[in-house]
Amino acid sequence: MTTSFPMNTGDGLYSYSKNSNLQKEIIDGTKEMVRDAIIRNLDIKNILSSSNTFNIIDLGCSIGPNTFNSMQHIVQVVKEKYHDNNLEFQVFFNDHVNNDFNTLFRSLPIDRSYYACGVPGSFHGRLFPSRSIHFAHSSCSIHWLSKVPKELLDEKTLAWNKGLIHYVGASNVVVNAYVAQFEKDMEMFFNARAEEIVQGGMMVIISPFTCYTRLMGFFGSSLMDLVNEGKLDESLVDSFNLPMYFPSPQDMTKVVEKNGCFSIEKMELRYTKSKILDEVDAKTLMLTVRACLEGVLINYFGSKIANEACDRTILKSEDISAWMKVNYEKPSTLFVVLKRK
Amino acid sequence: MTTSFPMNTGDGLYSYSKNSNLQKEIIDGTKEMVRDAIIRNLDIKNILSSSNTFNIIDLGCSIGPNTFNSMQHIVQVVKEKYHDNNLEFQVFFNDHVNNDFNTLFRSLPIDRSYYACGVPGSFHGRLFPSRSIHFAHSSCSIHWLSKVPKELLDEKTLAWNKGLIHYVGASNVVVNAYVAQFEKDMEMFFNARAEEIVQGGMMVIISPFTCYTRLMGFFGSSLMDLVNEGKLDESLVDSFNLPMYFPSPQDMTKVVEKNGCFSIEKMELRYTKSKILDEVDAKTLMLTVRACLEGVLINYFGSKIANEACDRTILKSEDISAWMKVNYEKPSTLFVVLKRK
Repeated sequence: MTTSFPMNTGDGLYSYSKNSNLQKEIIDGTKEMVRDAIIRNLDIKNILSSSNTFNIIDLGCSIGPNTFNSMQHIVQVVKEKYHDNNLEFQVFFNDHVNNDFNTLFRSLPIDRSYYACGVPGSFHGRLFPSRSIHFAHSSCSIHWLSKVPKELLDEKTLAWNKGLIHYVGASNVVVNAYVAQFEKDMEMFFNARAEEIVQGGMMVIISPFTCYTRLMGFFGSSLMDLVNEGKLDESLVDSFNLPMYFPSPQDMTKVVEKNGCFSIEKMELRYTKSKILDEVDAKTLMLTVRACLEGVLINYFGSKIANEACDRTILKSEDISAWMKVNYEKPSTLFVVLKRK
Repeated sequence: MTTSFPMNTGDGLYSYSKNSNLQKEIIDGTKEMVRDAIIRNLDIKNILSSSNTFNIIDLGCSIGPNTFNSMQHIVQVVKEKYHDNNLEFQVFFNDHVNNDFNTLFRSLPIDRSYYACGVPGSFHGRLFPSRSIHFAHSSCSIHWLSKVPKELLDEKTLAWNKGLIHYVGASNVVVNAYVAQFEKDMEMFFNARAEEIVQGGMMVIISPFTCYTRLMGFFGSSLMDLVNEGKLDESLVDSFNLPMYFPSPQDMTKVVEKNGCFSIEKMELRYTKSKILDEVDAKTLMLTVRACLEGVLINYFGSKIANEACDRTILKSEDISAWMKVNYEKPSTLFVVLKRK
């Protein structure tokens, strides 16, 4: 069983659909690279057999609008490359079964030039028939682990992550437990994709790297504030850990090579332009992170504590801005292009 | 633009998922016929080209459990016929975009032996790429029209359906307007399916016929009670008409032949066993009809009037039972098997 926590549902004040500008910047910042990858690597005549349908999957799509942006871009570039009016596109939007597919479906662009499907389930397992997919895409979602590494749940070991909710700034034992879980998850992920993607089919993975990871810690600080005020038991914070690992190029190379079914066409860290980070707009940043984390926090601490920790973190935006100015780090994104051997 | 009204959502007291036993009886009562149709008509070697994936669609699936029952049955029969371990199944669950796909996905059987997708959109238009579907199924949904026939909206014509909410017991002009709308809708339906279904692919349509249609009238009577008590304007009831037409074998034959792309392998009315009708269980019946109609009624009259009309109809269950005993009619179902030429 894998655990799963959807981005905040619906389209309200704290919803993911209203608070996903950071992810939009990452997608927009890598659009030219996606275009370039398709132009260089896609050989549609070899991968479509008797059919004229090009099947695209978005793994961990959440509820839009970013996924629509990415999918339309891919369709557009493939159309531009091939000028084939007979070509048809089918897009499979995938996310966990408790993702808000109703909101996703209701906000599908009316003028889309593809047939749309929703596919519920964890991308750490099989989702599609064998050799049925031509292009797999995953943006800002590969970092979600299937579960918290179990070593972190034993307070008698060095992996007990005291006072922290993540591996950033934690001991090597904690970091290694996260890496090991990431490797296990990616083994399942690539085994499944190797079956589903046709020979010559492509996969593009986009994942936030530096700078973003450190933001999670501010939510941990707010939880610790509640501990210090006697409103929350410290061992609860110690035992809580975010099920996220942000892989480096080395981490990704290792798991792709272990799987052995994909050639690495590109694997690099790219600095992506971010208006939000350039303007040190901590409030927008924290609202974005909240839309991603709140579900996990509610599941563990209950909605009262989770909402209070989130509200407090948003209130600290000015302090966080000041901290960011001092600790400036260029935002970078891992960009990966793979091809099924 | 087509209008659409989902079955009652969620899994509460009046939900479709808790009130769809009548549809279950119809599906169970035609299972042997579906099995027989697959055994006689399906030639899988000719319709699967290079792929091993058998694609099934359920058109107008609503939110389960009936759709899961039907889909598992089809998969099971195809497996029994072919004993091919390499065969994989992909099921596309289709309904209007405002169908409750979240509930559908969360109730997917864990032990299913197919890959599941949801496809939002009207089956009166295109939903899938060309020649991508091997088996289309539609049970208790083909009777939903894309809209109320526009002739019924003009109070100056003979098609003004005074005091009624449906064509049963109405004038010929009203009935003909319904038939004309059904034929227009089926033209769009079959044009779309003719593109989507591969040559040799099958379509099974199951549609309630006699007996069920007369039940709608009781909701009309309850609306007229509210008119007589001065709680509702009569012209509102006159101008309201249910967007449903229950086709006869002759109606279906006509639209299939007009389209010209499908051969009729079977087209018959079958008496299906119904415990609910045998036991004259009007309350269960009316709760089932309510789960289907309430959305349309709320859309037109608002939830206060719609709920009151529904509650009153349920309260009349004993009178309806008495009426049913006197006016007994064997329940019959239209069963259609088509093959793409």
